[in-house]
Amino acid sequence: FSLNKTYSVSLPTMQFKLNTKDTASKARAGVITTDHGTIETPIFMPVGTVGTVKGVHQTELKNEINPDIILGNTYHLYLRPQTKILEKAGGLHKFMNWDRNILTDSGGYQVYSLSGRRKIKEEGVKFKSHIDGSYHTFTPENVMEIQRSIGADIIMAFDECTPYPCDYNYAKRSMHMTHRWLKRCITHLDKTPFKYDYAQTFFPIVQGSTYKDLRKQSAEYIASAGAEGNAIGGLSVGEPAEEMYEMTEVVTAILPEDKPRYLMGVGTPINILENIALGIDMFDCVMPTRNARNGMLFTANGTINIKNKKWEDDFSPIDEMGITYVDTLYSKAYLRHLFAAKELLGKQIASIHNLGFYMWLVREARKHILAGDFTEWKNRMVKQMDKRL
Amino acid sequence: FSLNKTYSVSLPTMQFKLNTKDTASKARAGVITTDHGTIETPIFMPVGTVGTVKGVHQTELKNEINPDIILGNTYHLYLRPQTKILEKAGGLHKFMNWDRNILTDSGGYQVYSLSGRRKIKEEGVKFKSHIDGSYHTFTPENVMEIQRSIGADIIMAFDECTPYPCDYNYAKRSMHMTHRWLKRCITHLDKTPFKYDYAQTFFPIVQGSTYKDLRKQSAEYIASAGAEGNAIGGLSVGEPAEEMYEMTEVVTAILPEDKPRYLMGVGTPINILENIALGIDMFDCVMPTRNARNGMLFTANGTINIKNKKWEDDFSPIDEMGITYVDTLYSKAYLRHLFAAKELLGKQIASIHNLGFYMWLVREARKHILAGDFTEWKNRMVKQMDKRL
Ligand SMILES: [Zn+2]
Ligand SMILES: [Zn+2]
Repeated sequence: FSLNKTYSVSLPTMQFKLNTKDTASKARAGVITTDHGTIETPIFMPVGTVGTVKGVHQTELKNEINPDIILGNTYHLYLRPQTKILEKAGGLHKFMNWDRNILTDSGGYQVYSLSGRRKIKEEGVKFKSHIDGSYHTFTPENVMEIQRSIGADIIMAFDECTPYPCDYNYAKRSMHMTHRWLKRCITHLDKTPFKYDYAQTFFPIVQGSTYKDLRKQSAEYIASAGAEGNAIGGLSVGEPAEEMYEMTEVVTAILPEDKPRYLMGVGTPINILENIALGIDMFDCVMPTRNARNGMLFTANGTINIKNKKWEDDFSPIDEMGITYVDTLYSKAYLRHLFAAKELLGKQIASIHNLGFYMWLVREARKHILAGDFTEWKNRMVKQMDKRL
Repeated sequence: FSLNKTYSVSLPTMQFKLNTKDTASKARAGVITTDHGTIETPIFMPVGTVGTVKGVHQTELKNEINPDIILGNTYHLYLRPQTKILEKAGGLHKFMNWDRNILTDSGGYQVYSLSGRRKIKEEGVKFKSHIDGSYHTFTPENVMEIQRSIGADIIMAFDECTPYPCDYNYAKRSMHMTHRWLKRCITHLDKTPFKYDYAQTFFPIVQGSTYKDLRKQSAEYIASAGAEGNAIGGLSVGEPAEEMYEMTEVVTAILPEDKPRYLMGVGTPINILENIALGIDMFDCVMPTRNARNGMLFTANGTINIKNKKWEDDFSPIDEMGITYVDTLYSKAYLRHLFAAKELLGKQIASIHNLGFYMWLVREARKHILAGDFTEWKNRMVKQMDKRL
């Protein structure tokens, strides 16, 4: 299999320029350019599930957290507000008033999480909505159409995301189905024009669970499609970090160097640094916002459970580093109080803090890659962040 | 009874300057000055129950909503974060990082709302915490001490807030107890120095339920205390608006003209304008934020239930008036979607919108009082706002 190069989907719709490759690791610094602007890599993409990064105003997202790209979930957006509303709005960018880049996942991950409420067949996946129990079917074809309507700058192949642990034979069969679905995605995309006045770039997804031979095989297949960027799925689903890193290593050795690599759904700050070292350029994860809503803060010196009684009378700033304005505007004692009292503002503050920290981390990684001392810095940070304060 | 003028509590701790009195109504425009700055009246005070105006960052409160004063609840703050923490922080202003004025209620209203979980005696009120069921007692004396510790600029007398409807004899007995408690508040305050490096001003509270003769009697008693400002409690507890206005009218005819008058817990935008016309200078109410969290928006042209399906594809701004940045940054369809998806951001946006609108309304009222056309404007606004969009 090799992608027919006359397919429109494989015409360059974005540029990727590699600025520097680290010498002591496989880390890279680059710049992606799309019709919605540039994305400096490595990048972390805050997750805006249904068209909102939970608890964060678009102004705060832009001015304080300042990511070049955010992520939306096809499954969630398809169910609510629904594709027809997004079309009427002129796409997700306009609907949510976000003029920078957006990437949408394919819904695969969410649908497979609906265990007991979905049925996977060669044709596609039939599933029951978590909202009203209504039945829907996702196929490679209709998911491409939905993503055309949502209108993200980067759209993803429809794949099967296998759970962990996963039986070898199941993982192998599933991987091949994901490959067959990839062909169907591409064939259908080529017949489906852009809906809005900007281009969309398509990323296929490597699967293969935690099996090196399958990952290798899948990476080769995906690489052969010649897409503008490539993704790794099916990791960060419960496997030990070491297994995740092994799989990343196998796959990045095969995926083309001159295309961005996106590791889906990863991860902790430490996971992110280790995977940057293995040649990953793009990340997304609900962890900074979800943990924030539970009172868990990430900092350069370790994690903080702000609900702890020990912060009750600690009137020092949330984070002396002051990456975002909330870090120095509010004290630990105040934030602890907001969580104790179950106040909305607590979740808001913690979300901005954590996203600001994640963004700082990848920006800093980029700086160190460019400066040539990434590995040294990474090793120090990994040690430093692996603490509970 | 007349307040001993040598009592420190009656020494001027704030200034009130009356700028203009409307000729066609009893509306007034004035300026209160305290150690935390000036308060232009009429004013609406956003409610910051436990040291946070729900869903609103302090920066948004200051820069977008821009009130000169906010309110905190003694009952809630006493239970959480607790007085000792507020003392350690150096008072509520520092704890929450708010450098403008704060007023605290006395806890009376909250405690009486705990029906079945509180017992009222001459000495004070024993009540059960809504958080952990622990028992506590509020007396006129300890509530004054708690308010010294919280450190608001304006602190309130401990009173009994009667329900509606209220038996005449109960209302009368209760009013006299509130009067006796006032003496105890003042006596105790005079022995209790300020805790921080700024002054606190004490307001007594008129009670008397919906009985004109009691309201008159109470207003006369309260006026005789010679405080720097006076409040009216026990209204907006379920009585028809007309009864509320009648009581306000009786009381403002008696309370001194040269002191600000605060009508506690009121109300809708229309209630506020009508009571301004009757000579009220200060208001507070949870309605703008509570209703916001339920998807109800106040606008100059009426109320909006943003959860309504009719807004599903209305991509026009939330409010063309654009009083706060959220009004034009987000569309009705987007906000409707956020409420449908139960997203935090929906509550955040609606809270900023409603508070911004309330603040606009009282600022506009002030402008029209100063311009001499308040009554005409008020009558037009009351008609205009009395609609469902
Ligand atoms: Zn295959
Ligand atoms: Zn009396």
